[in-house]
Amino acid sequence: MKYLHAMIRVSDIEKSLHFYQNLLGLTLIRHKDYEAGRFSLYYLATAEGEPEIELTHNWDDGEYVSGNAFGHLAFSVENIYDICQKLEDSGVVILRPPRDGRMAFVKDPSGISIELLQEGGSLPSHDKWSEMESTGSW
Amino acid sequence: MKYLHAMIRVSDIEKSLHFYQNLLGLTLIRHKDYEAGRFSLYYLATAEGEPEIELTHNWDDGEYVSGNAFGHLAFSVENIYDICQKLEDSGVVILRPPRDGRMAFVKDPSGISIELLQEGGSLPSHDKWSEMESTGSW
Repeated sequence: MKYLHAMIRVSDIEKSLHFYQNLLGLTLIRHKDYEAGRFSLYYLATAEGEPEIELTHNWDDGEYVSGNAFGHLAFSVENIYDICQKLEDSGVVILRPPRDGRMAFVKDPSGISIELLQEGGSLPSHDKWSEMESTGSW
Repeated sequence: MKYLHAMIRVSDIEKSLHFYQNLLGLTLIRHKDYEAGRFSLYYLATAEGEPEIELTHNWDDGEYVSGNAFGHLAFSVENIYDICQKLEDSGVVILRPPRDGRMAFVKDPSGISIELLQEGGSLPSHDKWSEMESTGSW
């Protein structure tokens, strides 16, 4: 038995691929278009062979609704301040800033909550982030 | 960077643990109760060190709502007929039976959609499953 993937539906595939590939740093492992069903599947992972995030893009669908039964996807990161800065510079709101040098929450372009956790524990306090208030929900 | 977990909220922790441990076959890696916040976290995986399913149990909360932005969690299984039979015997509805010997969908006790995929491709056709209609949504 193996955990293969978590699937999420995305309405703007370009924005979502930019978020997961360029901002979070995942790799696009494979991609397939289904002309007859008018949808595309994109599989991203931290490395080949690792469990994947499957993005389903229905060509004709609009927005999707996030319930609260599903919580979030979590990733460890090399430097939580650096990645939060990169996300912020790209217009992503840091909903729960890494005040503790350890944990942050953002949302992907479809509203899926993403938890970022510092590898190996927590970084030393950082003025910019330690004083930033949380905003919204995640 | 590492993919750590997918978090889902569950209202009946006993039912959910039974589903993920006894029926799907995941292992409870660790568990912590937070008395002050009145919640518990349970981390399950196919093996230690693998990405986890985090179950959040808020002691005082009721039901949760499933949106459609989140799709499903997928696992490969040794024998898709055997696990579907085991699930059915335990009262789990096989929403998308493995007619093709390859893919099935069920829901966990909280309504989270679970995809089961046959390891290595598909099994030979099986009378019971090949003729079973799909039901509901997943």
